[in-house]
Amino acid sequence: MFMSAADYRESLRRYSPRVFIDGHAVESVADDPRLAPGIAALGVSYDFAKNPAHAPLMIAQSNDGAGVPRMLAIDASSTDLLYKLEAVRLLCRRCGCAQRYLSHDALNACFEATQAADAAHGTDYHQRLLAYLQRVQKEDLALGIAMTDAKGDRSKRPSEQQNPDVYVHIAERRNDGIVIRGAKAIVTAAPYVHEFLVMPCRRMRPEDSAFAVCCAVPVDAAGVTVAARPAGRPGEAAAKFSARYGQSTGVVLFEDVFVPWERVFLAGECEEAAVLTTSYATHHRHSCIGARAGFGDLLIGAAALMIEANGLDPERHAHVRDAMVELIKIVEGFFACGVAASVYGRTNAAGSIAPDAVFANIGKLLLSTQIYDMHRLAHDLSGGLIVALPGPDEDHNPATQASLSAVLAGRADIPAAQRLEVARLVEDLTASHQGGWYSLISLHGGGSPEAMKREIWRSYPVSEKAALIEDLLDRGVLADGRRVSKQPGRCCVTGCEVPPLPSAAE
Amino acid sequence: MFMSAADYRESLRRYSPRVFIDGHAVESVADDPRLAPGIAALGVSYDFAKNPAHAPLMIAQSNDGAGVPRMLAIDASSTDLLYKLEAVRLLCRRCGCAQRYLSHDALNACFEATQAADAAHGTDYHQRLLAYLQRVQKEDLALGIAMTDAKGDRSKRPSEQQNPDVYVHIAERRNDGIVIRGAKAIVTAAPYVHEFLVMPCRRMRPEDSAFAVCCAVPVDAAGVTVAARPAGRPGEAAAKFSARYGQSTGVVLFEDVFVPWERVFLAGECEEAAVLTTSYATHHRHSCIGARAGFGDLLIGAAALMIEANGLDPERHAHVRDAMVELIKIVEGFFACGVAASVYGRTNAAGSIAPDAVFANIGKLLLSTQIYDMHRLAHDLSGGLIVALPGPDEDHNPATQASLSAVLAGRADIPAAQRLEVARLVEDLTASHQGGWYSLISLHGGGSPEAMKREIWRSYPVSEKAALIEDLLDRGVLADGRRVSKQPGRCCVTGCEVPPLPSAAE
Amino acid sequence: MFMSAADYRESLRRYSPRVFIDGHAVESVADDPRLAPGIAALGVSYDFAKNPAHAPLMIAQSNDGAGVPRMLAIDASSTDLLYKLEAVRLLCRRCGCAQRYLSHDALNACFEATQAADAAHGTDYHQRLLAYLQRVQKEDLALGIAMTDAKGDRSKRPSEQQNPDVYVHIAERRNDGIVIRGAKAIVTAAPYVHEFLVMPCRRMRPEDSAFAVCCAVPVDAAGVTVAARPAGRPGEAAAKFSARYGQSTGVVLFEDVFVPWERVFLAGECEEAAVLTTSYATHHRHSCIGARAGFGDLLIGAAALMIEANGLDPERHAHVRDAMVELIKIVEGFFACGVAASVYGRTNAAGSIAPDAVFANIGKLLLSTQIYDMHRLAHDLSGGLIVALPGPDEDHNPATQASLSAVLAGRADIPAAQRLEVARLVEDLTASHQGGWYSLISLHGGGSPEAMKREIWRSYPVSEKAALIEDLLDRGVLADGRRVSKQPGRCCVTGCEVPPLPSAAE
Amino acid sequence: MFMSAADYRESLRRYSPRVFIDGHAVESVADDPRLAPGIAALGVSYDFAKNPAHAPLMIAQSNDGAGVPRMLAIDASSTDLLYKLEAVRLLCRRCGCAQRYLSHDALNACFEATQAADAAHGTDYHQRLLAYLQRVQKEDLALGIAMTDAKGDRSKRPSEQQNPDVYVHIAERRNDGIVIRGAKAIVTAAPYVHEFLVMPCRRMRPEDSAFAVCCAVPVDAAGVTVAARPAGRPGEAAAKFSARYGQSTGVVLFEDVFVPWERVFLAGECEEAAVLTTSYATHHRHSCIGARAGFGDLLIGAAALMIEANGLDPERHAHVRDAMVELIKIVEGFFACGVAASVYGRTNAAGSIAPDAVFANIGKLLLSTQIYDMHRLAHDLSGGLIVALPGPDEDHNPATQASLSAVLAGRADIPAAQRLEVARLVEDLTASHQGGWYSLISLHGGGSPEAMKREIWRSYPVSEKAALIEDLLDRGVLADGRRVSKQPGRCCVTGCEVPPLPSAAE
Repeated sequence: MFMSAADYRESLRRYSPRVFIDGHAVESVADDPRLAPGIAALGVSYDFAKNPAHAPLMIAQSNDGAGVPRMLAIDASSTDLLYKLEAVRLLCRRCGCAQRYLSHDALNACFEATQAADAAHGTDYHQRLLAYLQRVQKEDLALGIAMTDAKGDRSKRPSEQQNPDVYVHIAERRNDGIVIRGAKAIVTAAPYVHEFLVMPCRRMRPEDSAFAVCCAVPVDAAGVTVAARPAGRPGEAAAKFSARYGQSTGVVLFEDVFVPWERVFLAGECEEAAVLTTSYATHHRHSCIGARAGFGDLLIGAAALMIEANGLDPERHAHVRDAMVELIKIVEGFFACGVAASVYGRTNAAGSIAPDAVFANIGKLLLSTQIYDMHRLAHDLSGGLIVALPGPDEDHNPATQASLSAVLAGRADIPAAQRLEVARLVEDLTASHQGGWYSLISLHGGGSPEAMKREIWRSYPVSEKAALIEDLLDRGVLADGRRVSKQPGRCCVTGCEVPPLPSAAE
Repeated sequence: MFMSAADYRESLRRYSPRVFIDGHAVESVADDPRLAPGIAALGVSYDFAKNPAHAPLMIAQSNDGAGVPRMLAIDASSTDLLYKLEAVRLLCRRCGCAQRYLSHDALNACFEATQAADAAHGTDYHQRLLAYLQRVQKEDLALGIAMTDAKGDRSKRPSEQQNPDVYVHIAERRNDGIVIRGAKAIVTAAPYVHEFLVMPCRRMRPEDSAFAVCCAVPVDAAGVTVAARPAGRPGEAAAKFSARYGQSTGVVLFEDVFVPWERVFLAGECEEAAVLTTSYATHHRHSCIGARAGFGDLLIGAAALMIEANGLDPERHAHVRDAMVELIKIVEGFFACGVAASVYGRTNAAGSIAPDAVFANIGKLLLSTQIYDMHRLAHDLSGGLIVALPGPDEDHNPATQASLSAVLAGRADIPAAQRLEVARLVEDLTASHQGGWYSLISLHGGGSPEAMKREIWRSYPVSEKAALIEDLLDRGVLADGRRVSKQPGRCCVTGCEVPPLPSAAE
Repeated sequence: MFMSAADYRESLRRYSPRVFIDGHAVESVADDPRLAPGIAALGVSYDFAKNPAHAPLMIAQSNDGAGVPRMLAIDASSTDLLYKLEAVRLLCRRCGCAQRYLSHDALNACFEATQAADAAHGTDYHQRLLAYLQRVQKEDLALGIAMTDAKGDRSKRPSEQQNPDVYVHIAERRNDGIVIRGAKAIVTAAPYVHEFLVMPCRRMRPEDSAFAVCCAVPVDAAGVTVAARPAGRPGEAAAKFSARYGQSTGVVLFEDVFVPWERVFLAGECEEAAVLTTSYATHHRHSCIGARAGFGDLLIGAAALMIEANGLDPERHAHVRDAMVELIKIVEGFFACGVAASVYGRTNAAGSIAPDAVFANIGKLLLSTQIYDMHRLAHDLSGGLIVALPGPDEDHNPATQASLSAVLAGRADIPAAQRLEVARLVEDLTASHQGGWYSLISLHGGGSPEAMKREIWRSYPVSEKAALIEDLLDRGVLADGRRVSKQPGRCCVTGCEVPPLPSAAE
Repeated sequence: MFMSAADYRESLRRYSPRVFIDGHAVESVADDPRLAPGIAALGVSYDFAKNPAHAPLMIAQSNDGAGVPRMLAIDASSTDLLYKLEAVRLLCRRCGCAQRYLSHDALNACFEATQAADAAHGTDYHQRLLAYLQRVQKEDLALGIAMTDAKGDRSKRPSEQQNPDVYVHIAERRNDGIVIRGAKAIVTAAPYVHEFLVMPCRRMRPEDSAFAVCCAVPVDAAGVTVAARPAGRPGEAAAKFSARYGQSTGVVLFEDVFVPWERVFLAGECEEAAVLTTSYATHHRHSCIGARAGFGDLLIGAAALMIEANGLDPERHAHVRDAMVELIKIVEGFFACGVAASVYGRTNAAGSIAPDAVFANIGKLLLSTQIYDMHRLAHDLSGGLIVALPGPDEDHNPATQASLSAVLAGRADIPAAQRLEVARLVEDLTASHQGGWYSLISLHGGGSPEAMKREIWRSYPVSEKAALIEDLLDRGVLADGRRVSKQPGRCCVTGCEVPPLPSAAE
């Protein structure tokens, strides 16, 4: 039975993690007001999954007919990919960032990589993962994805670092499991998840094999410490949105944490660690597209209300319409890449499907840089007022209240308070610390732009395009056979057969 | 039975159109070397349709099982839209611009608009259109779309123009048909089609009803004159591509041309003329996405060969890889919009389906401005050489041949001639008159950027987004009921139910 | 004698303004910690003017040889413009935004507009202004520029507003002066200036003449109320920069404030109000260029330190160098427009000089949109860490201090604390509420992008360029004489004689 | 005495160069129609220098009071730099590309590098150069700058190439001079200059010293062969501009060409070859800014005429005004960088002055990529018509003339012929082979974008900016002394004293 947001919050009481925020220990994660917006945002993914109206998107089909929460499901079809994309957008246009789609991305990556490891090495990681997955789905858990290592000197590989703890690694192999050490630097939702999935964040060479580790660790395992930020802007009156919904990120320290073998999914297999990293990146970049499109919905809606309150009419004021269209173009332009990545998803040997890497990476690359343009357009449309307004406590100052409310209205039939409320919402989303978080997480979450560019280059069928030109120039195939013109009748981008689509209106 | 490219060329002998190129009359369209590249390019759409390997994309299913050439088919499903998109890309990556997809776009628009007119006015346009369509499909015709009027003074409406002939209009209504007059300014492939489909190019007010005319006219009907440009760069040795494949555009004069009623599909219905214009625009912008993605394939392939010939390695030379990735990002970024427009296609009362307008317009808007970036990147990757090379006749000059070929090679194992050939291809595609044609037609074909922006604004569910924010701010629905939060569980962009997708790898 | 920053702070005790911050009254502006960063930032303009090393830029020449603080000087030469530009950059690269250059911009605008009004109407505004100016310079005052009205319904003119107080206007004309009413919505530094210069913010029609008012009002005049925000982020440990330097903006209410005639500089002259508005806009946009270039210096410097701390080498890591060069390109690209606006400054009938409007507006337009790219690049270069770091109080938490400091270092020879300090500085400048303020104020301060575009269009010699083409096409001058080819030997942009420049190294 | 354009053309008869165009020998350069547009364009620089109205810009001051043609003068002051910049713009807005500013750029580079070589090596290159310069100025010559080598495999250095002739090098040193061999790939105006200045195009290592050669060679020296392209589009009726003015580029082969010592300016000095290359690049990029701003003037003027002919009014049609402003913003935005580079010019040990490298490179970088946006905007403003018009021979076809001219007009009071003429001009400048030449030469001429980026990085005072931040953070100077805060009171970009500027209106 799926949990509600309230169930989820209660469930956190079963854990006693060691969490600090701004240097102070957290007594009860479920009750700490500094974390409440984060728990509320993650909770939206629980409540929406229980809402029958959202079921087609939020619940994936399962063999037993009971369904699986989309955020914990293994994708079996292009439909699953598209529905997950829409589901993430649906959640994030409500709560800014639902956080929980990272669980989905990581589980799918583990599903593929453990199968590959078993095939190559005769291990039994996939069975362990399936058992773990079953429990996660059954208990409807929230997982924190502990992937981004602290990294230390960026010009050195893991095994070259002066302090090896800047990457999480296997410190000891025991009969009953492994002991891990090291720090993960950016773990979304760290304080209020049930478990961490520890995963490598880069390709490894043989000498780095101790760093090729993937395993599951309860949030309150011995040796785990979380140093986190508050989620959103709890308690701030001006934070129209992020006092309600927010996200905490934390540094997670693993100081000699023991992990029993049944929770270990990779332990030294460098090649499959690369499979894991790449598969996670592809799934996660695809999910980010949905997430930031949801954020775009918030900006579009808020801008529409600001325009109205200011008395402007996009039909008559061309530059206002122009800015709205540019905002829409950006949001739906990268969202389309998510749709295309779903349509051209690729199945793998494990029997699951991943989004097409070219489209997923292009979509994420577009959003990661254009989030700044989205902020710019939101500011252009809202006017300078949004950082110049008196703070919300001024609204109740008897000395100024009447005068200010008389002059800070826009259109005469819309009360000043209503206009200011939207202005503060835009400020909160785009010009506060929370706004900074959205831009940074869009730029760097799931890999920096350079990482996307390298992946696009690695995945794109460049030589097929070169062959096309050689055909046109009536050159034969080169002696080394490198250039063979693509099979006819297949997709020009992916080389796959083009999939049929049912009509949208069926 | 479908025609081959050769059949198509022969079929042109059955017509005797009045065509001038650069002031000189064309004796035989089929034989005139100035038109040969255009006939060859359009011919590719015939040959590919007969190639069984291309059948899934090039042939649409029909009730009789025989199939219909994709370029003449009415779209019945999202799959049809996606396959058409891929088919157009497939054609254009061979011949630059296949031209014939305009037939598809216009027939689909007529299909929808005639049904709408009949429903509103009790006319029988749809039956006429079906009869005409059947003949076109059976005879496998090529249609020229005569839509863009000469327009005269851009600040005046059709009925306000000093010379009414700057827009094609009904000059006389007779018992047996209508007489039309006026000029269409940009008709792609005009000299070497079988028939013209005359269509209005803008919204009309009641006073403009004489201009709301849609009908079919044989290319050699009495009163029709075509003043055209040569197709591509026929006979130019340096034109590695466009001496072989090109496009002719022509001004088409209709000087009191009689059209019998069975060929008339709208005659004064302003509202359905708007349906026709919008439907055509949506289909055509969707097709343009496929077309220019095919052009992008040519640039990507040519750039890859230039890099190789220059001895550069994208793995080592980061700025080369960066430029390639930017080129790929642009091409697949707008192509993704075409895919999304297919997935979210909208069925209409006529029973056919059109691409989603938001995604189709965004894709076309992106390509129409980014074609210039594509040229820039192709130039960046090829080097300055491409406009500084001696002309191809220099290659055979005994006085310079040996010296030049010794110094104009790049990498030692790739002959200079091979490098120069690709350089000339890039010049031809991007820095010749033909390159100018590609950029202009990308910018203005199917409507200028401003037209796309207006359509995006018209089609986008802005008020649904505003309602989303009002929900978040816990505001009730406004009194006028204008804001109603969207139905849950539906696509965040289109409001449709999200369609299921079969897995690509099935 | 010029004041120091300390003198300036003390001088504020002579005033008793009615100021509220977040609903609470300010007892003593000079002592309120919420305003300290603003007073410190504005104070930098005082201290730098007393520093002999900065004298060439910070002190303008005066007839009496004593010099005038640059921020209060009337520009007499292109050199003055260039030195002011560099002076503003110099200040802002120290304190983010010096605020006081608005005094300069407004005084120069009043200088020009009062002369124009007198010439047209036989008034004596200019003498009043000169007397006022002399006092301001002698007392070395800080002025708040009260220009941006609250505006109400943006689709209506001032006289059409339901509540006339949304624009400041003359409520009563008396023998001894005028009484003004209304609200100015965004007044930089409002709580801690000595006086307000009230100015109109838009062009007026005759029916709006009551709104064409310019006058000086002491900050503590009867009827003046300031509702302000805290300056920067006072008292926040994480605010490496803006706990020290910040800016307060305030809404200023004028509720029947009496202004004696000697302090009134325009009272109903609509045409000269337009001169005033335009002149201020030109000067201010020019100053904004210097200000934001100084902000750019801060980002460039901080990014360089982050790169170093992360162990990256721009020579080897091409994408890092690329991002740095893009950041430099943006900053120096718009700064160059400020230099060109100085070189091509225009003298006016009042004997002063203003920056060239085309270059000044282009520079401001570039920075107003590219500030978002500057944030993007700073984030790209710093890494995601900057919004994921534990808060600064964590640094002193004995439970985590040692572990975190061991893993959060980058390059081994740079202590973690040093790296985190720069990371927090970048966060403060670009991803905090203060970062939002910088972007909004860059976008909207001195007019929104649309205002700049309209001014560029109004000022650019388009018809001279058209004449150039008509010459080339050997067309004669048109009958209406409209097109006359420009005088030879003059600047191609401004039509002025090109000024000689002394060599930089003389 | 300066030559006129006619004198210059006649002077070409004194030379008998070995020139081929498209494989055919040129009998007389002065008379060959294929070169006429090039000779006419270069001739404009002669005629304008004789026009007294242009004298302040076109003639530099000289000690003897007679003046020196700007295109051959050594810059002695910032004024010289600014006047040269404006002079180049003045020429290029007449003839597209004046070509002759390359002479200026190369002579200035030789002036600086020969002095540096003499100072380092005790050679007498500078005296040789001065003697040569005197002759060039006295005879008012046109020089071809033979700099860009053929380069072969781009991943290999000159001495590593399989065929050393892909770079020009010293094949033999003799008592009386040197013998050079090799190919220069892109020499502007090659067929119709008097002499070539041969210069190295990249930095050399010691093993490449044979390639570090700079010398002057008459265009008809024994062993010199030019394989060139026609200049512009000679004889094409549609080429409204480039049938009149154009540019030829040529490959120049040096096959054992003897150069006497008095014409040799560097012969193996690698370090000073780097000085030469860098100095040339800086001067040339600065000149390119003026050149392409002149091209921008042509586009702005032509667009204004097209808008008018189409009946559009930028005041009412916001998107038209918007596109015009964007075009202006681009052109004047990069031109401003040229102005700033002049103001902050740097004097050198040879006593001459060069533009500031940061601003010159940023300006060139901006134009090199934005030339494509300029084309885009010109196309947007002109409409699609410009590549769809019937060719100009159609204008005289009695069968279509009357009908076409009736429907191809725009605004009723502007004849169709006048509209078509401007449309063809825009096509010629932006959508013909000539348009391709302008974009390519803007992108690659004077170095590709990557070269500019590297130079900006090399020249920018990044560590001064880092020091600024360390000051702010109250860090001391680092032990290695690397960071010393900049001197106060100096330019924030260049570290120079800020130069005074005379008022423009003096």
